[in-house]
Order: sequence, then structure tokens, then C-alpha cells
Amino acid sequence: MNILSSAALPIENRKKLNKTFPEINFIFCESIEEAKDHLSTAEIIITYGDDLSENILNQTSNLKWVMVIAAGIDKLPFEALHKRDILVTSAKGIHKAPMSEYVFFMMMSVYRQGKRLIENEKNKVWTRDIQMEEITGKSLLIAGTGVIGQEIAKVAKAFQMKTIGVSRSGKTVNHFDKNITHKEMKTHLNEVDFVVSVLPSTSGTQGFFKYEHFEAMPNHAVFINIGRGDAVRAEDVLKAVQEKEIYHAVLDVFETEPLSSDHPFWEEENITVTTHLSGVSPHYFNRALEIFSENLKSFQEDGRELVNIVDTQKGY
Amino acid sequence: MNILSSAALPIENRKKLNKTFPEINFIFCESIEEAKDHLSTAEIIITYGDDLSENILNQTSNLKWVMVIAAGIDKLPFEALHKRDILVTSAKGIHKAPMSEYVFFMMMSVYRQGKRLIENEKNKVWTRDIQMEEITGKSLLIAGTGVIGQEIAKVAKAFQMKTIGVSRSGKTVNHFDKNITHKEMKTHLNEVDFVVSVLPSTSGTQGFFKYEHFEAMPNHAVFINIGRGDAVRAEDVLKAVQEKEIYHAVLDVFETEPLSSDHPFWEEENITVTTHLSGVSPHYFNRALEIFSENLKSFQEDGRELVNIVDTQKGY
Repeated sequence: MNILSSAALPIENRKKLNKTFPEINFIFCESIEEAKDHLSTAEIIITYGDDLSENILNQTSNLKWVMVIAAGIDKLPFEALHKRDILVTSAKGIHKAPMSEYVFFMMMSVYRQGKRLIENEKNKVWTRDIQMEEITGKSLLIAGTGVIGQEIAKVAKAFQMKTIGVSRSGKTVNHFDKNITHKEMKTHLNEVDFVVSVLPSTSGTQGFFKYEHFEAMPNHAVFINIGRGDAVRAEDVLKAVQEKEIYHAVLDVFETEPLSSDHPFWEEENITVTTHLSGVSPHYFNRALEIFSENLKSFQEDGRELVNIVDTQKGY
Repeated sequence: MNILSSAALPIENRKKLNKTFPEINFIFCESIEEAKDHLSTAEIIITYGDDLSENILNQTSNLKWVMVIAAGIDKLPFEALHKRDILVTSAKGIHKAPMSEYVFFMMMSVYRQGKRLIENEKNKVWTRDIQMEEITGKSLLIAGTGVIGQEIAKVAKAFQMKTIGVSRSGKTVNHFDKNITHKEMKTHLNEVDFVVSVLPSTSGTQGFFKYEHFEAMPNHAVFINIGRGDAVRAEDVLKAVQEKEIYHAVLDVFETEPLSSDHPFWEEENITVTTHLSGVSPHYFNRALEIFSENLKSFQEDGRELVNIVDTQKGY
């Protein structure tokens, strides 16, 4: 069996795959360009998910499985994959630790005046006259109750926070005090201190947060987006901060990335911009390829234990 | 009964005390200077604990109880208080939430390159090429296993950290995977990623962390001091960072405060200086006076339920 990787994998991960699966012919490439010559024989492709155009897909003839080693899968050519009945799995879950840490880091950066602390240190200013808020005991609404949302809620409980989870079904999920549906969200926004979006990009989540939602939040609310940038329109979140409908927005993802250097987000005092790095982790490849390896073992057997299967019709 | 406060209390807290204890004559002052005229009649003094000199104490004649509305009590004239058998209670415990938050905020600031993120935002630099570490799963040694140490350990468990508690007795304490004595500490330092000191200032804790302890830590270790500055000598922690025995030190407390503007700590890249504010909280007075009120009720009855009693002979 030929397994082709268009994702540049670290040497140690390549070695480990070769050692774990000696019977398999791995072709490790640095990019889809380099991988092109091997598309026709590949049965499995390992990819970041952003380099598989329909055109690329047409050059494969033995492809059975696309393993995306990222959590976001919104750039895949779903229709073509569905038509050819190609299995797609993701690395969903590998980002839960870093993304959860990011959320708490940012909550406390805002509440504990991180920027001012660094400024004071730089200027060697000794002052104890700094207003600080506590996240302990506050209310947190999380849109998206998958593995990442659950991890955030779990840590939030250690800080005695109240946790509300928002999902399509509103079904009960671990670590949430309350689970509500998308439709029910608006009526709960007035009771929360933090709103975190971990929503992926699907047809149902684009423009999910509207200006009216920010209006419904308390004026001291902090909005944090670590899912996908298109869950909210830039002009809505900008206006909400400028009109003081909310106190602060922490944005790690944007409708267009990289964020252009003249975008007003950069200079807005009550918007914190980071550069799509909430999921950055030194354990990224190990975790992604651990999921892949377990799936590959199952695939070689009967495929019953496969995890993180993507519904190519629905796109998630 | 006359209760004198030399601590400037917010109006709403004064009102609440008057309402809760209508039979008591509260004398609310802004400072010990203003309080001086009332010392002779005061039976109870509410103080931050840093304004009660032996001279002041000699001007009291009816004093039965000193309520310190701070966690640190090391500036009290213990000998004189002990001699006159005056009850001393503290507000121990009120800082656990903000101090625990501070620790996790700072751990993540160091691991997630907080200063660089802010710098990049300021300069509108879009880059995803930033090394980040996770605190999840790391090892944390906490010197001091009282209420604050336990709160930190509790949150650490939500991040799946390994927690080692260091105390005089080494007795088993909640939320710690392992409890060891002061003497045993050195042999465990090589296995930890973070070392947090919440030690108070007593004769047994001054200079507690020595250069040899930093040598025993891994080179990537991060040392965080939120207890008292004299738990470690400035030159030892400075040398440990400069010689790369440890990676980073986060210091909120110092041998001499305020830290002088020419102190080398300010400019050392791998030392983070904050200005004794890990315990700053908007809930400070409410929490401190809640402890005081409960103690006062008990004091009016039979005194059996008094909490946070300080041993004036031992000084803690």
C-alpha cells in the first residue's frame, strides 16, 4: 500500500511511521507540488487539508482515504470526495489542550491587564494601583460543544465558572451547567461574562454571531473567537467594541488571513489580535499522527474502530 | 464595644458592618494617624497589619483582638502581642482566587510568549512562526500547601499537571499528587517544570530557596514567587537566570519593596517583574470583612468558632 504525505512531517514522525508500519510504502513529500508525481498510485493521502483541490483529486485513481492532520477541514473539495466515496478523517481533538490554554490565557490577559503590566515593567514603574478582575466564578458561554469546547468548560469548572454550551442539538454535554440550542442562545447572552466561539466553518455557522448578539451581551462582556473567522463579520465585532456593546474582543481567526496590516482591528485598544495560533503546540505532529496510526491499524483490520470520520455530504 | 479600624474601608463595607452589628461602636479611620486618639478605648482593631508598632500597641489599654485584613502578618509586633495575650486573626484565604489566577496567567505568559504576542500586535506583524509550550501535563512544585497552594494545585489538576506540595510536615494535602517535607524538596527539583513559592515570611522561610536549589532544577524550569520576597535572595535568583540554571523567573514580591528602579531584575529578559499585585482583587474587602464578621459573631458568643487565629508565639 502506498501512503503519500503532502504535509511536511518532522523526520522523527516519518521514522516512527516507517517503524510502526514496515509493510507500507510511505512517500513523504514537503508539499503538494512535490507529491504530484505520486498521486496516481496513492491509496491514502496525509494532508493539512488546504492543498487538495478538485484538480488534484482528479489525478488520483486509487485513493481510498484522505487523512487531514488538522482540525479545520473547510477547504476540502467535499462534493468530489463524496461522489467518489473517499473516506475522510480529521485530527479533531489534537488542539484541545493548546486552544483551551489560549482561552484562559486571554481571559486573564484582559481581566488582569496584561498589556499594562508589561508596559509598567518596561518603564520600571512600581504601582499597586491596578484594577484587576477575577475570572473565578464568572459565566462563560461556549458556542461549539465538541472536544475543544468541552476541554475549555472542564478547566472553567476548576475556576468555579458557570458554563453554558451552545450546539445545534442543545444536547447535554459533560462539564456544562447548561446546554442550549443555537436558537436559544440569544436569550442567554445577557447573563454571561465571556463568550467563546470554537465554531468551525460550515454553511450553518457563517455569520453566526450578529450585531444583535453583541447588543444582547452585557457591556462588560469579552468575546473570544478561536474557531473560524467567518463565524462573525469583521464590521460587526468592530462596531460592537467601538460602540461599547461589549468591553473587549480577542480574535485569533479572521475572515481573511493573514489580516491585512491596515485592518482597523490592529489599532483598536479593546481588540486583541493574535495570528491564528491558539492551536500551536509542540505536540502537534505526535498527536495528529497518533490518531492517524490508530486509524490506520483499524483500517487494515475491518475499519470498525475508525475515529474522526468526516461526513463528506455535510462537510463536518 | 469599640472597634477601631486603621484600615481605610470602602463606604459600603462600613455601612454593612454598622447594619450587621448595630450594638457596636465602629470608629472608621483612614490611617493609624487618624486612629491614634481612639487607641485607648478600642477593644478590637482592624488593620492591614503594617501600622501596628509596639509604640502604638502601648497606647492601647482595652485591646483584646487585632484583626488583620491581609494575608501577610509578618510586620506585627508579635512579642508584645503575645505578652499581653491579645488575640490576632488574619484574612488568610481571601487571596486564593486572584493568586491562583496570577500563577496560571504567568505560566502561560511565559510558555505562550505573551510579550512577543503583544509586540507583534503592536507592530501589526502576522506570523504563525512562534514556538509555544503547553502547561498541560507539566509538573508543578508548590512550596507552601495552605489555602493558596491548594487552590493552585486544584486548578493545576484541571490542566492534568503533576503536583508536588512542600511543607514543614510533608503531610498529605488535597489536590497534591505527592507531599514532601522541606528537607526532601531538593531531591525532587530535577523532575519539575514549574516551582511556585507561596511561602510566608517566617524565621524558617527566609532564604528558603538557595542557589543550589536552582542548580537542581532543570534548565527549562520556571520559578514563580508570589509569597514573600525574602524566601529567596535577589542575587541567587538573578544569577540562576543569568547562568541559565533556570529558564525564567516570575517575581511579584521582593526583599525590598518597592523594587528600586535601578534593580537589574527590571531589565533581565528572562525575569518578569510585577509589583506585588498577585492578590489584587475587587472582592478583597468583601471577603476580608466576611471573615471578620463571622469571627466577630463567634467572639460575641463563646469564641469557639474563631477562624484564622494567629499563633503570636510562632508568628504564623
